[in-house]
Order: sequence, then C-alpha cells, then structure tokens
Amino acid sequence: MTQDRSIDAVVEEVLARLSESLTTGQNLDGRSCITCRTKGCCASVCPQTTVAMLQAGAERVSNAPGIVDPVTEDMARVIDHTILKADASWADLSTILDEAKKHHFISVCVNPGWVKRCKRELEGSGVKVCTVIGFPLGANSPETKAFEARRACYDGADELDMVINVGALKSGDLELVERDIRAVVESAGAGILVKVIIETAYLTNEEKVAACSAAKRAGAHFVKTSTGFGPAGATVEDVRLMRSVVGSGMGVKASGGIRNRQDADDMIRAGASRIGASASVAIVKGE
Amino acid sequence: MTQDRSIDAVVEEVLARLSESLTTGQNLDGRSCITCRTKGCCASVCPQTTVAMLQAGAERVSNAPGIVDPVTEDMARVIDHTILKADASWADLSTILDEAKKHHFISVCVNPGWVKRCKRELEGSGVKVCTVIGFPLGANSPETKAFEARRACYDGADELDMVINVGALKSGDLELVERDIRAVVESAGAGILVKVIIETAYLTNEEKVAACSAAKRAGAHFVKTSTGFGPAGATVEDVRLMRSVVGSGMGVKASGGIRNRQDADDMIRAGASRIGASASVAIVKGE
Repeated sequence: MTQDRSIDAVVEEVLARLSESLTTGQNLDGRSCITCRTKGCCASVCPQTTVAMLQAGAERVSNAPGIVDPVTEDMARVIDHTILKADASWADLSTILDEAKKHHFISVCVNPGWVKRCKRELEGSGVKVCTVIGFPLGANSPETKAFEARRACYDGADELDMVINVGALKSGDLELVERDIRAVVESAGAGILVKVIIETAYLTNEEKVAACSAAKRAGAHFVKTSTGFGPAGATVEDVRLMRSVVGSGMGVKASGGIRNRQDADDMIRAGASRIGASASVAIVKGE
Repeated sequence: MTQDRSIDAVVEEVLARLSESLTTGQNLDGRSCITCRTKGCCASVCPQTTVAMLQAGAERVSNAPGIVDPVTEDMARVIDHTILKADASWADLSTILDEAKKHHFISVCVNPGWVKRCKRELEGSGVKVCTVIGFPLGANSPETKAFEARRACYDGADELDMVINVGALKSGDLELVERDIRAVVESAGAGILVKVIIETAYLTNEEKVAACSAAKRAGAHFVKTSTGFGPAGATVEDVRLMRSVVGSGMGVKASGGIRNRQDADDMIRAGASRIGASASVAIVKGE
C-alpha cells in the first residue's frame, strides 16, 4: 500500500508538472517547445517527461504523426546495462562501467560478487548498481536469497533483480513463491528497488499471471520477464500481459534478447518501463 | 593435511582388505571369485573393490584382457543422479528419488531449495543428498556461498558441489578463488564432502591447474569439471589433467554431457572417481 501511494504521488506530480509545461509552452527541461505545439505531451522533445511517465507506470507511449523515435533520446535512462556472464573479468566489467558513465544508463546490472567494487567505481556518476539474487535458477532456499539480498545491499547495491522459485510455481506451491519474494523485499529494506524475474519462458500464461500477482502481493516494485539464461527472452506479448496484471503501480522490466533500438521501442510500447540489455550501447545509438 | 591422512587411511584399509581377499580367493563382498583367478584385482567381479579404490583416489582402472565393462556392475555407486533444471517440479524430483533408490545411486544432486524434502524422502535408503552452492555462475560473494553451504547442511545435505568464482580466476585474483572455496569448506564442516566445480569450458589449461590447486589448498575433497550449464561439459582430457593435479588425495567428478555407459567408462578410465549425470539410468543399464 505504501508503494502504491508513493507511485501515485509520482504520477500526480508528473501530471501536474506536465500540465504546467503545456500551459507555459515549455517542456520539463525548461526549454521552449519548438517542434510540437499540438495538444498532449510530445515524447520526441520531452523524452525525460515520457520516461518519467513510463517509470511511473504508463502503459503505452503515443506520439504525433511524422515524429519518429519516441523516448529514445533518453532511452539510456531506462536501460540497466547488463553483464552477468560467469567468466566476465574485471576488465570486462570496467568496459561496462565506462559505457554506463558515458551514456548515462540508469544502472549497471552485475553479479553480486562485483557489487562492492562497482559501487566504488561509480561513485558520483549517477549510475546505480543493480545486482541479481538467486540467479539465474531461482532454486535456492528463501533464507539464502534473503541473505544474498542483505549482503548485496551492504555491499552497495541500489536495485535487486531476484529470480522466483520456478520449481515451486511449477509444483503449485504459490505460498512458497510469495514467501520467497517477500523474504528478499524485507531484506532489501527501504530505498532499494526489488525486481522479480518470473522467467516467462518456463511458464504458462496462467503461471505468469500467478507469479506477477505474487510479486505484487509481496511488495516488490517491478516484475521482469527473463534472466537471459533461460530458453527464451522477453516478448511483446509477455510484457503486455505482465503490465496488465501489475497495472500502473509497479514497473515492468523487459530483458533477454533485446539487441537493438527497435526491440527496445517495441518493449516500451508494450508497457515496459525498464530494459535489461547487454547491447545497450547499440540500442541508444540506434544501431 | 587431515584430509590427506584420512584418504591415506582409507587407501591402506582397502589395500589391506584387497590383499586379504586375494589370499583367501574371495572378493570383498565375501563371494567366491569365479571368473578371475589371475594375479591382481578384477574389476568385473569385484566392482565394489574397484569403486572403493577409485573413490580412494586411484588414477586408472586396469582389467584383464577379454573382460569388458570394468566397474560398471557397480557403476551406480559412483553416480550423482542429477536434476538441476530451474523448472523441475516436485513430481520431477520424485521420479529422480525413486530411480536413485531403485538403482542405488550414491546420491541425488538437487538444487538447494529441495534439500530438506529430499532428505526426508530418502531417509533409510542409503542414497545421499548432494546439492549445489553458488550455482551455476559462481559469481556470488564468498559470504553468500558460505551461508548457502551452512543452510544446505542444516537442511540435510551430505555433499556440496560449489562453483568457483570464475570471474575472479579470469581476473587473476587467485587469492579470492581460494578464499571463496575455503569459506564453503569451513561452513560445511566435518563429514560433509565438498566438490569444487571449476567449469573447465571457460578456462585455459593453466587456469584449470590453478583452480585445482586452489581447491586442494583450500581443503576441498573433490574437483569437478562442469556445471552442465556452461558452454561445454566434461572431457577425457580435462579429467586426466585434473587428476594429475590433485593426485590420489582427492576425488575427481566428471559431469556435463555424460549421456551413456561409454561416456562414463571413458571418464572413469581417465581418472574420474565420481560421475554427475541426469542420464544415470541409461548409464547403468548400458543404453
């Protein structure tokens, strides 16, 4: 309920500022609106406004005809720049951190063993540290996931992407699925964003709905499609379904197989408010 | 050193009993030796003796000419019957437990979230519960691996297969690789077997040697080739190399891609003293 209220407050504030900017003919960056003077908010010149709306839970982004690339001017601010390969060395991580600083990605998503070092390297950059919990199988005990979450926060993580207990869901044990998520949310504590990876590729539509509902009940902030280590990644259909279940009160992160700007745009149009990708630079460059 | 002495004691005891059985014309099961009366121990009629020798660290199994399938009469007792898929349900696990009881596999190897339930189900069966730590990426903090190990033992695990910090090895941080293994060995405590998965597919030969040496220094009991989730599984060459590094004082577990009896025999001949497989039934049936 606290989370719902806080999201509502953000939405109200964004709407209020948006309404003001339209009245004064200025966008939210304080610059004059040159291209679009049509009714409504133009994503092409007000990318940050649109991103804020998406992050607040907007389900779809519309745009005036003839104006291309909605949101993408500030696409970087919805991308978790990701490196989760087992054999990634510090040299590989360093490249990711440099790219994240250069392109202003919202976060780097790294394995928990790297969190402390990444946090130190990113100090003052405005780039957050996101890490993964019970990754990528999700088949750990709730106690271990809770410990790993606490440790990651202690090491400096700002966001936690946890994997649900897929086997428990497949066994019909929804109580365990929810308890497992709640253990991580409670370990993370205030100010830490928890995203719940449901690993859609393993699930029926009914199971996807059940997993999203469990994440919502357990107080998580986002649902996320995929680990990138399963048999398939994000699909537009799954993002749409997940958004329809969690509504505007939670975020939806699309991840796994998002390789270019078109993929990312498709996901955002379907309702994603965050993108997880390793091809992040190609995405923001429109390659 | 304690571990070295204890392995030595086992070897001595096996050798003493073996010598006695040869003198009395009986194998270690107490049955008369029908087929082989040649000098030396015949693996075909004394499979348990041979398995004991392998488990004690024997580097190679030899056999009299014309006698096929060394060890395989009791192959089951060197197989960890494995199910580690993220989406395995309790029904899938139950099948594995039933097979393990029926074929007398030495253990079932399951994800940590299932340990408690498996331990309960296997009570009195003689089948051990093996689980995995920091699996399959190994990129967790040493503290999390240590916690997961403690929790698994508390839940009833008899054996722990931990993944090394591959990224640390790739970054040249051997101190962290060893500390990470030691944290699990110390958490596991007395009576719990710790196997160290080095994930050979990611490593150069030099890195394989360094990883095995770190496992030996850290007091682990086995080295193991692969998680089964990496880009490749066990190879005869890797098993031979790993055996040459750890000598007779430790076990070598071959896992990943072992699908039939021929594969398993090849691994054992190369020096493996344990096999990890999901195709375990096919292996013991010689399919």
